[in-house]
Amino acid sequence: MERVYLDHNATAPLRAQARAAMSAAMDVVGNPSSVHAEGRAAKAIVERARAQVAAAFGAEGADVIFTSGATEAAALACAGRGLEGAAVEHDAVGAWVTERLAVDAHGRVAVPEPGRSVLQWANSETGVIQDLPEGLAVTDATQAFGKLPVAFNWCGATMALISAHKLGGPKGIGALVIRRGTELAAQIRGGGQEMGRRAGTENVIGIAGFGAAAEAAASDLASGVWERVAELRNILEKSIEAGANKTIFVGKDSPRLPNTSCLATPGWKGETQVMQMDLAGFAISAGSACSSGKVKASRVLRAMGLDEATSASAIRVSLGLETTEEQVLRFAEAWLSTEKKHRARAA
Amino acid sequence: MERVYLDHNATAPLRAQARAAMSAAMDVVGNPSSVHAEGRAAKAIVERARAQVAAAFGAEGADVIFTSGATEAAALACAGRGLEGAAVEHDAVGAWVTERLAVDAHGRVAVPEPGRSVLQWANSETGVIQDLPEGLAVTDATQAFGKLPVAFNWCGATMALISAHKLGGPKGIGALVIRRGTELAAQIRGGGQEMGRRAGTENVIGIAGFGAAAEAAASDLASGVWERVAELRNILEKSIEAGANKTIFVGKDSPRLPNTSCLATPGWKGETQVMQMDLAGFAISAGSACSSGKVKASRVLRAMGLDEATSASAIRVSLGLETTEEQVLRFAEAWLSTEKKHRARAA
Repeated sequence: MERVYLDHNATAPLRAQARAAMSAAMDVVGNPSSVHAEGRAAKAIVERARAQVAAAFGAEGADVIFTSGATEAAALACAGRGLEGAAVEHDAVGAWVTERLAVDAHGRVAVPEPGRSVLQWANSETGVIQDLPEGLAVTDATQAFGKLPVAFNWCGATMALISAHKLGGPKGIGALVIRRGTELAAQIRGGGQEMGRRAGTENVIGIAGFGAAAEAAASDLASGVWERVAELRNILEKSIEAGANKTIFVGKDSPRLPNTSCLATPGWKGETQVMQMDLAGFAISAGSACSSGKVKASRVLRAMGLDEATSASAIRVSLGLETTEEQVLRFAEAWLSTEKKHRARAA
Repeated sequence: MERVYLDHNATAPLRAQARAAMSAAMDVVGNPSSVHAEGRAAKAIVERARAQVAAAFGAEGADVIFTSGATEAAALACAGRGLEGAAVEHDAVGAWVTERLAVDAHGRVAVPEPGRSVLQWANSETGVIQDLPEGLAVTDATQAFGKLPVAFNWCGATMALISAHKLGGPKGIGALVIRRGTELAAQIRGGGQEMGRRAGTENVIGIAGFGAAAEAAASDLASGVWERVAELRNILEKSIEAGANKTIFVGKDSPRLPNTSCLATPGWKGETQVMQMDLAGFAISAGSACSSGKVKASRVLRAMGLDEATSASAIRVSLGLETTEEQVLRFAEAWLSTEKKHRARAA
């Protein structure tokens, strides 16, 4: 039977528009820094994509600094700035900030000093959406961009991290978006690229894919397709709720991303569930994908006050635009049947 | 008339093998850090490419740390290490080292203390090849890899920087190759990727292209195709020498890359030559491409003892595997005719 991919928050399939833009960019030989016609053609691809990303993210082109992904953007935005954050932040941000901001049971973060704080726009594991306070130093918009209406110019943050592969672009390309006039020292140096803020020959093919994917994602978002995804997510949760009385849906009382469901079933390790469902033909995850396959109790859930056992039992199911109702129902059925067997064994 | 691309040291056309590998990688949805089948498939692409790059570069797979290019690799290898280098190094290396090593008139660098020094394997502007001393801290192998027989395991250096797009892979992907046991702190953090030495979701499509291009480049090199390119380069230089008596060929008395010619014609600005030849249908460069279109007197040539005026009059013509004799002769003819007009105006 065809496999069902329900791990879109880890990475989303490449959009057809991104593939087409990348294939076209493969034919352009020049280095964007070269002054000849071939160089100018490559530069034009980069600048067109910059405009596409900026438009989709509600920013100005000049504010977009292409990086190799949101993780590099996090280092560029946060390193050496003495910022504070909450335990629900992604490790790529957590690596650079002091963990000090409080998280409530619904996953919402209190930010007493926005100017020296980092706050994610939406959480990758629970989908919980934050209200960004005015004057926030940095927001991690990786999960929000493409799934929620976002506008950097109105969000109140000075810097934002975004990634292509979460919205149907290629992996390995992202951007730091930065309000004009903000001081920023390049970390990768030795070239004038990205207005002197990030040296190195541009990932022209990846950038072309990012631009096309961002444009397509914004257009999809405007047409309301995520409402259908939210309905499927709700169908999934109702189906599971009806059959598994011990399962809790983390973050369900908060505003959430339309595609994300975080299910904790105490006594049944998330890691085990991921492997069992993988064998049954479904791709889901336990916690964030980004720690090279290591799965431990979710730091995010612990921060929301859930105990160790419950946190270790969580899985994330994240839907995409191509997900069908049939797939969701098939997953719910397979998961419930596996859960029943687990209970039988545990009893 | 069809344009002629003679700027391969700035960036080379994408190889067919790279394009095919990238297209195939576009179909694989998973995040290499995910434990499910889709994640493992993505991981397999990355690890296959790592083995290809390692084999082509004469290294072990475990020694290859994928980065967003040689510029990031330079920062990772050099930042904070207090290394010394020569003025002929690329800016991406120069940004991190103290400029102290002497360069002779042939472009050769003296390295009294290899353990605290950086030395390029071959120069991007002149093509001059260095003898790497045993125990060298870092070598920039960006221009050598793919054009010269190279073997990291035998080169005597502790770390090497390489880039995909100089050998027919995509732009925006490269690697730091590092001898096992060398201490290295990640600069981009917050994930366990690349054995904890470089966080961030891998550029799977770019990495696939790098692997395929490296394998193809090594195979081409072994078959001796660069000897034909060297002959074409020599034909180019003889043609120009026969018609322009003031032109000098910088680095000609040193071992050079087979594809590179650096021509200085005092009294005629390199920048002007690049634009005139661009209008005539030829892509060449003046100095390194990497300083966002800014062209000044070549730092490399100044370091070799050439005066300001001569250095400012240099152009680089760099051939590729697809370059034909007809293209080279056409370039020589066009350049000589432009030079004649320049002399007539200047007289």
